[in-house]
Amino acid sequence: MRRDNGNVSTNAEANVQHPLTGFELKAVLRESARDKTIFLHGKVSSGSENCNDAVIILEKTPFQMDTVSSLLKNDPELKLQLKNDIYGVYHLSPSPELNEIKTTVICPASEKHIKKYLQQEVYVIHETEDDYKAITLPYIESQSFSIQWVYNILEKKAEAERIVYENPDPTNGFVLIPDFKWNQKQVEDLYLIAICHQRGIRSLRDLTVDHLPLLKNILEEGKEAILKRYSIHGNKLRIYLHYQPSYYHLHVHFTVLGHDAPGSSVERAHLLCDVIQNIESNPQYYKTRTLTFALREDEALLKKFKELRDI
Amino acid sequence: MRRDNGNVSTNAEANVQHPLTGFELKAVLRESARDKTIFLHGKVSSGSENCNDAVIILEKTPFQMDTVSSLLKNDPELKLQLKNDIYGVYHLSPSPELNEIKTTVICPASEKHIKKYLQQEVYVIHETEDDYKAITLPYIESQSFSIQWVYNILEKKAEAERIVYENPDPTNGFVLIPDFKWNQKQVEDLYLIAICHQRGIRSLRDLTVDHLPLLKNILEEGKEAILKRYSIHGNKLRIYLHYQPSYYHLHVHFTVLGHDAPGSSVERAHLLCDVIQNIESNPQYYKTRTLTFALREDEALLKKFKELRDI
Repeated sequence: MRRDNGNVSTNAEANVQHPLTGFELKAVLRESARDKTIFLHGKVSSGSENCNDAVIILEKTPFQMDTVSSLLKNDPELKLQLKNDIYGVYHLSPSPELNEIKTTVICPASEKHIKKYLQQEVYVIHETEDDYKAITLPYIESQSFSIQWVYNILEKKAEAERIVYENPDPTNGFVLIPDFKWNQKQVEDLYLIAICHQRGIRSLRDLTVDHLPLLKNILEEGKEAILKRYSIHGNKLRIYLHYQPSYYHLHVHFTVLGHDAPGSSVERAHLLCDVIQNIESNPQYYKTRTLTFALREDEALLKKFKELRDI
Repeated sequence: MRRDNGNVSTNAEANVQHPLTGFELKAVLRESARDKTIFLHGKVSSGSENCNDAVIILEKTPFQMDTVSSLLKNDPELKLQLKNDIYGVYHLSPSPELNEIKTTVICPASEKHIKKYLQQEVYVIHETEDDYKAITLPYIESQSFSIQWVYNILEKKAEAERIVYENPDPTNGFVLIPDFKWNQKQVEDLYLIAICHQRGIRSLRDLTVDHLPLLKNILEEGKEAILKRYSIHGNKLRIYLHYQPSYYHLHVHFTVLGHDAPGSSVERAHLLCDVIQNIESNPQYYKTRTLTFALREDEALLKKFKELRDI
């Protein structure tokens, strides 16, 4: 089926209209400088009159081992950008066939397609102890976001067969389970979550010396269980909490170093070993300190901060 | 001085030897399909006979808002990959000037440079106060990695015209300059470095209350300078130090949220606002605490830890 499509379209290329005929840029929906991708909303006249909105996704292609030499041989054209000591930076203009751009065209594109790729602005928030009490805590208590799915896991009403390890202690125990983002097919992007049995620990902000036994169980037993099941040693793991978390029942993330899992960056992740150390040296650490995190434009909590603080 | 270099190299491109003359690929050191980067070890005949090893870093450049339209107008050449319903995937061959490759040449490259870019296993290290004194500090003091290029910048012997902002105070001043990783063409991957004028502050470990004025200057003046020059507000910035840093002269990283810059993950980055807060609440914080970071297999510091500790 897939091959048929390919053939039909390939043969047809000559006679059918160019997919970008009359292209006109309407908006840049999203852009990733790291991934070298850009998501565009454009108009093309190749669609039928009333539906020529298009989403166009451009992605620079990865380098290929077998052609990379050809880029550099025979004194290619280089524009000098800067020179300092042994370091030189240039811009190289490669021949097109060695430097293609993957181009995905969605046409006609619906409002939904366009929204799906639209970027959200992100803001840094510095949440003081008072901000937490006045803004974040009331927001958490008011929000209707159900965590029934978490309780279902803890009560074995769902995903029971996915559980990798459990310490059943109601106060200091937890369940270790693969994260949905991980397909469990390769350990290169291993991602598990430890969910504590004890209820009512919303986040980092609630943690005190009382929780040290729980936190240490998660750290030590979690590493052991992952070594046993996946043969990945604890010294290869990034073990951390999120603040803000995506749901307010205490859980800990286990991912492998070398895979930069989403949410592992410094403005959201807090290493469990640091959390334990901070509480041991100052029992009030997470109650009193200013915590910094990022919020997206469309997040309800950001709206609350904007109402009550100068963001 | 730097400008002279620039002119010489630019004008001279015809007469001086091409930096890649006689290029010969020896090994692919590392490759990232996500980042569209590749790190090569090659030989070039442009260096002097006995030192023509080179590390060459190729990186596809991010898309630019102002030129992206030109890639798609006037029916560019497209090779169809697949067509299914409203989705079409093509390979586009752009004209070279619209699709440059950033090319960094390090020549002559030492064993150390080549190792630095070689793909390696990664290990988590928990460095106690004693580990720092017994292992890391002696390592730093023994290592020969030159930071002449840093002094060149501080003394305006190189890159003087790239300086975005300077506070010239020898104790509490710094220079703000775009990082090599940023081509300065779009703010989506904005990346600047603040390098302090004061010498001898190796890293986070050396920071005390004496450095609070310097750190606060970098935080506040850095944000102002970036707002003025690039119209990016401070609440869109991730401002952090690395531990371990890649060179032991105190510097601070400024990157934009939404762009997950390499080195911004929790096992390496420390938010400047947290560093200030930690020192204010405990002047001995960075001297005494256990700091966690990741080291690659071939890093000399890891070898030292393996010799003296159970990793």
